[in-house]
Amino acid sequence: MTPTARKPWQSAIAEFTPDGINVRGYDVLNDLVGRIDFGEMVYLLLTGELPKGQEGRMINAVFVAVADHGISPSSTVTRFVQAAGVPIQCSVAAGVMMFGDIHGGAGQELARNVQALVAEAKSSARSFDEVAQDFVAAHKRIDGFGHPQHPEGDPRTRILFELADAYGVAGDHIAMTRALEQALARRARRPIPANIDSAIGAIALDLGLDWRLARALLVIPRTAGLFAHAHEEMTREPGWRQVPMDQIGYDGPPPRQP
Amino acid sequence: MTPTARKPWQSAIAEFTPDGINVRGYDVLNDLVGRIDFGEMVYLLLTGELPKGQEGRMINAVFVAVADHGISPSSTVTRFVQAAGVPIQCSVAAGVMMFGDIHGGAGQELARNVQALVAEAKSSARSFDEVAQDFVAAHKRIDGFGHPQHPEGDPRTRILFELADAYGVAGDHIAMTRALEQALARRARRPIPANIDSAIGAIALDLGLDWRLARALLVIPRTAGLFAHAHEEMTREPGWRQVPMDQIGYDGPPPRQP
Amino acid sequence: MTPTARKPWQSAIAEFTPDGINVRGYDVLNDLVGRIDFGEMVYLLLTGELPKGQEGRMINAVFVAVADHGISPSSTVTRFVQAAGVPIQCSVAAGVMMFGDIHGGAGQELARNVQALVAEAKSSARSFDEVAQDFVAAHKRIDGFGHPQHPEGDPRTRILFELADAYGVAGDHIAMTRALEQALARRARRPIPANIDSAIGAIALDLGLDWRLARALLVIPRTAGLFAHAHEEMTREPGWRQVPMDQIGYDGPPPRQP
Amino acid sequence: MTPTARKPWQSAIAEFTPDGINVRGYDVLNDLVGRIDFGEMVYLLLTGELPKGQEGRMINAVFVAVADHGISPSSTVTRFVQAAGVPIQCSVAAGVMMFGDIHGGAGQELARNVQALVAEAKSSARSFDEVAQDFVAAHKRIDGFGHPQHPEGDPRTRILFELADAYGVAGDHIAMTRALEQALARRARRPIPANIDSAIGAIALDLGLDWRLARALLVIPRTAGLFAHAHEEMTREPGWRQVPMDQIGYDGPPPRQP
Repeated sequence: MTPTARKPWQSAIAEFTPDGINVRGYDVLNDLVGRIDFGEMVYLLLTGELPKGQEGRMINAVFVAVADHGISPSSTVTRFVQAAGVPIQCSVAAGVMMFGDIHGGAGQELARNVQALVAEAKSSARSFDEVAQDFVAAHKRIDGFGHPQHPEGDPRTRILFELADAYGVAGDHIAMTRALEQALARRARRPIPANIDSAIGAIALDLGLDWRLARALLVIPRTAGLFAHAHEEMTREPGWRQVPMDQIGYDGPPPRQP
Repeated sequence: MTPTARKPWQSAIAEFTPDGINVRGYDVLNDLVGRIDFGEMVYLLLTGELPKGQEGRMINAVFVAVADHGISPSSTVTRFVQAAGVPIQCSVAAGVMMFGDIHGGAGQELARNVQALVAEAKSSARSFDEVAQDFVAAHKRIDGFGHPQHPEGDPRTRILFELADAYGVAGDHIAMTRALEQALARRARRPIPANIDSAIGAIALDLGLDWRLARALLVIPRTAGLFAHAHEEMTREPGWRQVPMDQIGYDGPPPRQP
Repeated sequence: MTPTARKPWQSAIAEFTPDGINVRGYDVLNDLVGRIDFGEMVYLLLTGELPKGQEGRMINAVFVAVADHGISPSSTVTRFVQAAGVPIQCSVAAGVMMFGDIHGGAGQELARNVQALVAEAKSSARSFDEVAQDFVAAHKRIDGFGHPQHPEGDPRTRILFELADAYGVAGDHIAMTRALEQALARRARRPIPANIDSAIGAIALDLGLDWRLARALLVIPRTAGLFAHAHEEMTREPGWRQVPMDQIGYDGPPPRQP
Repeated sequence: MTPTARKPWQSAIAEFTPDGINVRGYDVLNDLVGRIDFGEMVYLLLTGELPKGQEGRMINAVFVAVADHGISPSSTVTRFVQAAGVPIQCSVAAGVMMFGDIHGGAGQELARNVQALVAEAKSSARSFDEVAQDFVAAHKRIDGFGHPQHPEGDPRTRILFELADAYGVAGDHIAMTRALEQALARRARRPIPANIDSAIGAIALDLGLDWRLARALLVIPRTAGLFAHAHEEMTREPGWRQVPMDQIGYDGPPPRQP
């Protein structure tokens, strides 16, 4: 095969075939559908390879853990937008936008940090504990630890880390995250456990995902919850959402004239 | 327990607990994570109950089949928006919006029709074939059949319907969709098979989902593909997308002055 | 000039020139900037022609009237999304999505109705009052009249209709809207005035806009308010929005086990 | 009046009144509609005060200059999304998201820089030229100067700066931007003029806007263009947009089996 020029829309993800579509070289319809589950497919899409071990089970566990979080900031936005009468995929899209740098996206930045700390420990031949302790000493506040709705620790983190051990996917990045938890707890004299965002960041890295994709493991499954909320909003609510007047305050200039 | 007043944000989907969160009454962390897969979790979220049969496997099959479609309208939009330098969940959200009434959402309207046709056949004691033939005779064009990229039939439809048979989830709505395919083929003297949108609509109904949620089975898995495209765009492309000038034409008023 | 083939991206709106850009044939930089105001530019973009009368002033009046509405559904959504830490144009975009068929978009459907009623009156040589009365008699509820926040009538409607008279832009569609108001008031024995959505729909039609663009007159100016809210949210609020737990209720299945 | 507790939705932007709404203390319907134009209203919303000079005219000039840019990245996205069959405000919202850090948003970061450079010159009593030259010497590439579609300089910048002079609103930030242009030109031995993004950033600052709002002056007016494109797409195009197959290339793994 002779090399071909780069096209305006060049991609290594998928290729159309007479039979359908190949993803990362695999014939989706003939070789994947009915044989792998969605967790494995997500792994293939995001890393480029099929799992060699239990990575698919790990992704399923994460996805089940975070598929919904009740009336949370993202479902609130989806429900507000749905109440305005737009197609369901648009209200879900609005909720998806919520997983920004503060809400949910924090894990991505942490994933970047954790990746750097692991590299630092390895290149300097220092222990993870030492490196974590220095990092904590140098930063007053570290995003991704603590959770306003779970002050005593997000139980999802504990369970997912245990499963990562059980499935054999826990590696350096979960280890470093645990080292950070311990360093933070020593400083604060109380537990400040990794919240679900950092847990997902660490798991994403140990699965071999690029840190830029950490929040994918939160957003993909949560779309299921957002669809459920949008549907409930459109079928059970009166079709108009607004903040009650008694929750609104004004503190701008007093009445005046031009 | 005395009945409590309805709250402004009332939901039957999930409930916060000291241990985490219950979804549809089930303790997610202690009873679901690591025990059910994401296909089963989606079924729980969208129908309110855990699968009794192989519904979860069916959802996994659908999700694997549609998780990516290469450079498609939705991934094109996600890549354009990613190239503008926004957070990844925002470019994914823009791609999600694409599953509107034309692209991808067609199946939802078809699901509504198919549901009505099944009800009509049952109430009038007529065969599905008769009802389908009358419906085809009354409509010049039926959305959800045929696909511009797969003129000879979307192979995903055939495979998914076969799996629905194998998993024991195929029911009246897939049967009615097949009856519509045959009636259309008779009229056109060539196959006009159900495209992936209608296939998903029929499967959604046979799984017990409300027709308003049909497109959820397309959008949830596709977010995985959209993340892959957004990531590829940000790591391999030069960071600026625009339509080349030679593809742009102007046919408005000639130059003039106020 | 020989006719040229239609390009993939064909448009009658604007044409690139060596000097910049022509919109609808006019040289923006040399002939429009500094000479027309934004109200006139909006008219040019949406109708294809520069105003011949005071259409630009009318658009300015509408835009000033609706540029902000305080803590409203759209600004609430923008503020929620901004609080999640996304770029400001993304939180504004989420607020823009709110102007759907229920919130704000109602005027578009009404505009379509009003256009049809005017046509009906003219073709049947009946008075606007008769046609409006029949329409009201045939419909239990008519979207676009009444407003939950202004039960006694949206004062914006009255002022804008008065200005439309003063500027000489009021025509058949405002007249028909007033006929509908009177017919509704007779039926309900109390005023049910056109809300701002229908007012804008009627004004849009009398300005010569297609009914599909009615909501543009609401959305374009409101983006100014949404930017102000997003900015205030990011500079004055603590960076995390969520519904307080005491406003959340659960009414799904009681705790159960798989 | 006794001080009141801060409400969950506290704002200094607008206050509901029995008569309608006050914005920044002014009664919109009785004192602003029909008296100020939209440029002045935008100034009021974004700075908190009515213009004292010709700031409103300046905003009108900017808004007319940037209200549309033909088939540009943002209108392309709006048209793609519109072609998928969503409500018009959703396709406009998708286009709005495009004004991110690369496309259009660059001016915001530049505004921040320019603000810092002006402060630096003032505090160190050095000339703007010196400070600009040092900044250019220290940065290989400066966002906001040069434009792929206008290699010889965006003519919009020149015209808008001239108008800023004429209207008496040009101040330190436009001066510093001009100093940067000169320093860049000296280094490159060819003009590298401020593009429209930086021009708007400098104008925003000289108008007294916070740098975080610089892109508002681009996005608010462009929604008018995006509505025009969405409307043209839905009324003149066949309702399906996709990248032609001959523009798509695949360079991932060759066909393989699991």
